[in-house]
Amino acid sequence: MRFFEKLERAARKNGSLLCVGLDPDPELMPVDDVAAFNRAIIAATCDYVCAYKPNLGFYEALGVKGYAALRETLAAIPGDIPVIGDGKRGDIGNTAKAYARALFDELGFDAVTVNPYLGGDAVEPFLEREDKAAFILCRTSNPGARDLQDLVVNDGDASRPLFEVVAAMASRWNTRGNVGLVVGATYPDELRRVRRICPEMTLLVPGVGAQGGDVAVVMANGLDAKGGGLIINVSRQVLYASKGADFARAAGEAARRLRDEIERERQSALERTDD
Amino acid sequence: MRFFEKLERAARKNGSLLCVGLDPDPELMPVDDVAAFNRAIIAATCDYVCAYKPNLGFYEALGVKGYAALRETLAAIPGDIPVIGDGKRGDIGNTAKAYARALFDELGFDAVTVNPYLGGDAVEPFLEREDKAAFILCRTSNPGARDLQDLVVNDGDASRPLFEVVAAMASRWNTRGNVGLVVGATYPDELRRVRRICPEMTLLVPGVGAQGGDVAVVMANGLDAKGGGLIINVSRQVLYASKGADFARAAGEAARRLRDEIERERQSALERTDD
Repeated sequence: MRFFEKLERAARKNGSLLCVGLDPDPELMPVDDVAAFNRAIIAATCDYVCAYKPNLGFYEALGVKGYAALRETLAAIPGDIPVIGDGKRGDIGNTAKAYARALFDELGFDAVTVNPYLGGDAVEPFLEREDKAAFILCRTSNPGARDLQDLVVNDGDASRPLFEVVAAMASRWNTRGNVGLVVGATYPDELRRVRRICPEMTLLVPGVGAQGGDVAVVMANGLDAKGGGLIINVSRQVLYASKGADFARAAGEAARRLRDEIERERQSALERTDD
Repeated sequence: MRFFEKLERAARKNGSLLCVGLDPDPELMPVDDVAAFNRAIIAATCDYVCAYKPNLGFYEALGVKGYAALRETLAAIPGDIPVIGDGKRGDIGNTAKAYARALFDELGFDAVTVNPYLGGDAVEPFLEREDKAAFILCRTSNPGARDLQDLVVNDGDASRPLFEVVAAMASRWNTRGNVGLVVGATYPDELRRVRRICPEMTLLVPGVGAQGGDVAVVMANGLDAKGGGLIINVSRQVLYASKGADFARAAGEAARRLRDEIERERQSALERTDD
C-alpha cells in the first residue's frame, strides 16, 4: 500500500492527525530500557495516532544499543500505522541511494524526511520508491530556520524567501504523488504561505507543545481544501507526560487529549472557513 | 589534540593533501567482508593520506553488519590520521546534540560534515566541541547542487548565490577556529569564489576522479595564501582501482599517484602565483 493511503486509513480509523515522535532521551526517560519504554508508549498511544516518527539522532546517540532499540521499536508498531523515519538525510546520488536502502529496506520505514540543500538528484532516489514517501524540509521549527530558509531569493521576476522556493520545487519533484513537506508549527505565517503554494500536499508539522507551537493556529493556517493534509507531530509532551511509573498511562492520556484538541480545532477552522 | 592540528601533522608526515573516502559499495567491492576490505585499503594507503572519510550512508545501507563494519574500520585507522565522519547531518538543537554524541563520542570521529539548511543553532552543538571540527556543506559536487545552492539571494545591498552566503555565514560561525567547508571539485569557479570569501578556511573537496573533477584546476582555484587549506577526497578511484585479488596493492598505488599528482599540481599552482 502506498504511504499516503496507509496514512489516510490510520487517520480515519483513529480519528487523528496526531503523530507521536519516538525520541528517547536518557535524561528525560523514567526507565533505562529504550525499547521497553517505546513499547509501553506505543501500546498506550496506538489508538490515538495516524503515524509514528522516530528521530534517528536519538538512537544513534546510544550506539549499538540504540540501533537494536530502534529495530525493536519498529517491530512493536502495529502494521497498519505508518512510520516516518526522521533522519533528514541529504547526499549526492549514489549515497542517497544507499540511504534509501538503509531507511526503506534495512529499517523498513514507510516514509522519510529529506534535506533539500543538495537539490533534486539527492532527493530522487527516495522518490523512486513510489510506495514510500519523502517529506522535504521546507521551513523548520527552530530559531535558526531563519538563517537560510528566510533569505530572499530572486526567482525569475519575483522575489520570495528560500523556503517558498523549496515548496515550489517540491511540487515540481512530486511527479509520483509521494512528496510531502516539513513546516514548523512555530511559524504560522510561513505555514499559510506554504499551504498556498502547495494546496494539496501533506505537511508534516513539528513544533507543537515543548517548542511552543499552537494547535488552533496550525489548523487555521495549514489545512488543505478537504480539511486535512496535516500530520501534527508531538514528542516530548506525550513521551514525558509523567516521569513516574505511570508514564505510559500519562502518555496515552496526553495523546488522546492532543488528538481530541487537534480534531476540535480542525472542526473550528473548517467552520470559520465556511462562514 | 584539535582536529586541524592533527590534520596538519598527518599532512606534513605523509606529504599529502589526499583524503581517502571509505565508501564500501557491495556492487563494486572485490570481496564480501566490508571490514576486511577496509582494513586492507587502510593498510595499503595510510602512508599517502592526510585523512580518511567514511560516508555513513554506505554502512547504514548494510544494516547491523554495516554498523559493526564501521566500528571495525574506525579501529583499524592509525591513531595519528584524523577521520571525518561524512553524515551530512542537520537537525534542530536537541537532536543536533544527539547527533554530536553519536558521531564524536559513540563512533569517535575527529570531524563531521554538516548540512546548513537548518541554520546556526543546528550547527552549534557540533562546534561546541572545540577539539573536533565541522565541515559545512557549501557547494556540493553533484549536478543538483545548482537547484538551491546557486539561487541568487538579496543579501543586504548585494546579490550573490546562496552558497556564497553560506560561506560567509560559516566564517561568522567560526569563532572557535573549528569550521571548514565542503566545496566540490567539479565547480572550479565556485571554489575560487569560496576561497575569496574564506581565505583561511580549510576546504574539503570531493569530486576528483569518478565525478570528473581535475586536480590541477582544484589547486589553481582552492589553495590558501600559505599553499594549503585543502583536503582532496577521492573514493572510487582508489577503492576500486582493481577488482581483482590485487585490489589493496592497486589502491595503494592509486593513492600514492594521487598524492604525488596533488603535490605536483600544488607546486605548479604556487609557482604560477609567484610569477
